[in-house]
Amino acid sequence: MSGNQAVDINPPNAQISINTNGSDWMWAAFALFMLSDLGMIAWMYMRHSAQRVLHVVPIIALSIMSVAYFSMAADLGSTPIVAEFYGNHHQVYAGDPATRAIWYARYIGWVLTMPLLVLEVLFTAAMSPTEVASTMFFQVVAFVSFLVGALVTSTYKWGYFVFAVASLVYVIVTLLGPGRNAAGLISDSVRSIFTRNVSVLAFLLFLYPIAWGLADGGNVITSDGEMVFYGVLDILLYICFLYGFVYQLRATDVCCFGFGPKTHKLITEKPVPAAAPAVAPAPEQIV
Amino acid sequence: MSGNQAVDINPPNAQISINTNGSDWMWAAFALFMLSDLGMIAWMYMRHSAQRVLHVVPIIALSIMSVAYFSMAADLGSTPIVAEFYGNHHQVYAGDPATRAIWYARYIGWVLTMPLLVLEVLFTAAMSPTEVASTMFFQVVAFVSFLVGALVTSTYKWGYFVFAVASLVYVIVTLLGPGRNAAGLISDSVRSIFTRNVSVLAFLLFLYPIAWGLADGGNVITSDGEMVFYGVLDILLYICFLYGFVYQLRATDVCCFGFGPKTHKLITEKPVPAAAPAVAPAPEQIV
Amino acid sequence: MSGNQAVDINPPNAQISINTNGSDWMWAAFALFMLSDLGMIAWMYMRHSAQRVLHVVPIIALSIMSVAYFSMAADLGSTPIVAEFYGNHHQVYAGDPATRAIWYARYIGWVLTMPLLVLEVLFTAAMSPTEVASTMFFQVVAFVSFLVGALVTSTYKWGYFVFAVASLVYVIVTLLGPGRNAAGLISDSVRSIFTRNVSVLAFLLFLYPIAWGLADGGNVITSDGEMVFYGVLDILLYICFLYGFVYQLRATDVCCFGFGPKTHKLITEKPVPAAAPAVAPAPEQIV
Repeated sequence: MSGNQAVDINPPNAQISINTNGSDWMWAAFALFMLSDLGMIAWMYMRHSAQRVLHVVPIIALSIMSVAYFSMAADLGSTPIVAEFYGNHHQVYAGDPATRAIWYARYIGWVLTMPLLVLEVLFTAAMSPTEVASTMFFQVVAFVSFLVGALVTSTYKWGYFVFAVASLVYVIVTLLGPGRNAAGLISDSVRSIFTRNVSVLAFLLFLYPIAWGLADGGNVITSDGEMVFYGVLDILLYICFLYGFVYQLRATDVCCFGFGPKTHKLITEKPVPAAAPAVAPAPEQIV
Repeated sequence: MSGNQAVDINPPNAQISINTNGSDWMWAAFALFMLSDLGMIAWMYMRHSAQRVLHVVPIIALSIMSVAYFSMAADLGSTPIVAEFYGNHHQVYAGDPATRAIWYARYIGWVLTMPLLVLEVLFTAAMSPTEVASTMFFQVVAFVSFLVGALVTSTYKWGYFVFAVASLVYVIVTLLGPGRNAAGLISDSVRSIFTRNVSVLAFLLFLYPIAWGLADGGNVITSDGEMVFYGVLDILLYICFLYGFVYQLRATDVCCFGFGPKTHKLITEKPVPAAAPAVAPAPEQIV
Repeated sequence: MSGNQAVDINPPNAQISINTNGSDWMWAAFALFMLSDLGMIAWMYMRHSAQRVLHVVPIIALSIMSVAYFSMAADLGSTPIVAEFYGNHHQVYAGDPATRAIWYARYIGWVLTMPLLVLEVLFTAAMSPTEVASTMFFQVVAFVSFLVGALVTSTYKWGYFVFAVASLVYVIVTLLGPGRNAAGLISDSVRSIFTRNVSVLAFLLFLYPIAWGLADGGNVITSDGEMVFYGVLDILLYICFLYGFVYQLRATDVCCFGFGPKTHKLITEKPVPAAAPAVAPAPEQIV
């Protein structure tokens, strides 16, 4: 009666679902997210208060992913959906019209945090708020479409898959095109950091549709395998990528992104109108 | 086995629901939304980059409505709810305690895009962000209330109808009162465009409660009729209205709305600190 | 057949749920929220248009809470969830594996309005938008976690309880630490108002986990008792606290919070370019 009892206490209600191995892995991933979250909070407080802005978004994202992984490790947050495909290359052990667990908790976490990744990256680009918001929005559309597609039992699920991939393409194109130009408006070093990181981000994001096609869409890999595939992607994206991104920007003053605290603005703004009348009459008086 | 098989593959689970005619019409409407979306994207890229801001919100709205119409055309996204009314003037063919399909996919699309219409219109008015956000919020409250009212089976649904109409009235009053004044602060021509378009918007918005009362609320018209009624309203609002609005503003510089890209700001801001030191040493030269 | 028939028309589907007394109390609370909402709207229009900003957020919050209380008074918006605990100190009248009504309508109202309370309070502090958004976000995380915990039947619900309390602690610490400092940047009187009100807010917020533990979590008090406990807290927080907060700031010019309407900005900005030519003719004086 010791060890991980999540699968016993909250039994799965789908025929194709995780077993204790999958739950063990998810507890490990949950611990990683939780520790990264606490580490990011500690790191934030070690920095000067004016430089903390870039740490806030990763903290939010890691907190939400921690809750999502806690839910999945506890074998909560899935719903049984009849799988579309059966046969030699698919999960057949459960009989023909079998249900597969669709982990909507995972999608809720993504819908809330994926746009935050885009926001974090675009903090370093001089784009207008409307463009930033629209890019975040299409990231939301992408993962909502993945969720709806996963919940649909018939072949129409691939229609949502197409919407999701098209939205992802829109996000990546915006980041690598106008986003990169806007990062170059700040400085050349920021542009090179931006380009390097967005390339990694784009590569990782395009692995998600592949995982989806093998797991929720095509019913090819087991639920435990799905947990490993998505879990490794999430750890690479939310922990390695975000820590690396913040680390590479550790020496960059966030004021160049327009994030100076309001107190700084008050100090720098006041001299400007004061200087204008003070300087303007100077030559005339001398003349 | 050819033609539109959506109703066969995803059979409706309510007794009063759409048949293939309704699904055909929804596929046509989906195609219209999709083409308008692509057309708006193409139009955006044909314009100067500084003028693209007004195109972003219509693109988001049309993308979401495309996904919603795809769902409804595929006969997905409805849930059976026992209708309140039966009898001579209502849908009687299904027997007395019959269920009617409530298309929640439609409401999800509205909840996400209706506030964007308000946002697009208020881009042209010099209102504070708090006022813009509150107007968008009441638009959300209106359509969430319509959704909850549609899902309630008892006569209490009309309580939510009252909340929804009251919220719509708040939105319209805000647009036509403070909104119109704020548009006048920008220029007289913007105010006349604003007044003309908001009048059309208000007229179309007030047809939605009528459609709701006949379809989801009163169970008077068929599900196919409901699809036509709502669909025509959506096409008028999301395609005709938005295209017309953006077209009327094609000659207006968006910088007058405060949307100048950050590059312009950087150019105009830099000379100010640069001028200060350049002028300061002037006395020295004189000395 | 007169009087409050909500419990008859919309019968509860859980074994432990409210009866007519609870519904009566909720109608009274609904009336209080509705009247406070209308009173706040009336108060807003009695003030100068530049001072209305602080009234907008309370109006939104009170409108949403009115709809939520209407739902609960009509005995709608609950779902039956098997309670975790039974026995001497818990609700036993319904037999052993009994279901308790979880009022998700209440949580939807909180998720939408609790961050608005934080926003209203932080209007008076000179914090960066990123910090304000992150504080609001953790308030959302707190009440979403309470909701998920209430919907989970097994002992894992207390995991979500821990997440919720940790998020609440983050919000309170941020308000009383950086928030109080940021309020002090505006003026000393604003800081003292901020400190006084945030202390009240923190005290009330920490009563919510206690109520949750007794009602949704521990199944100790009846559903009617739950309605009274939460209802009194909501009335204190959304009506007494918000009215008091706005009242204490009635004499403070909102322009010092950065909320001057754009018209004022235009008026105050124009003199600056106007001053330049005003100084230019200075040579005339010299001449």
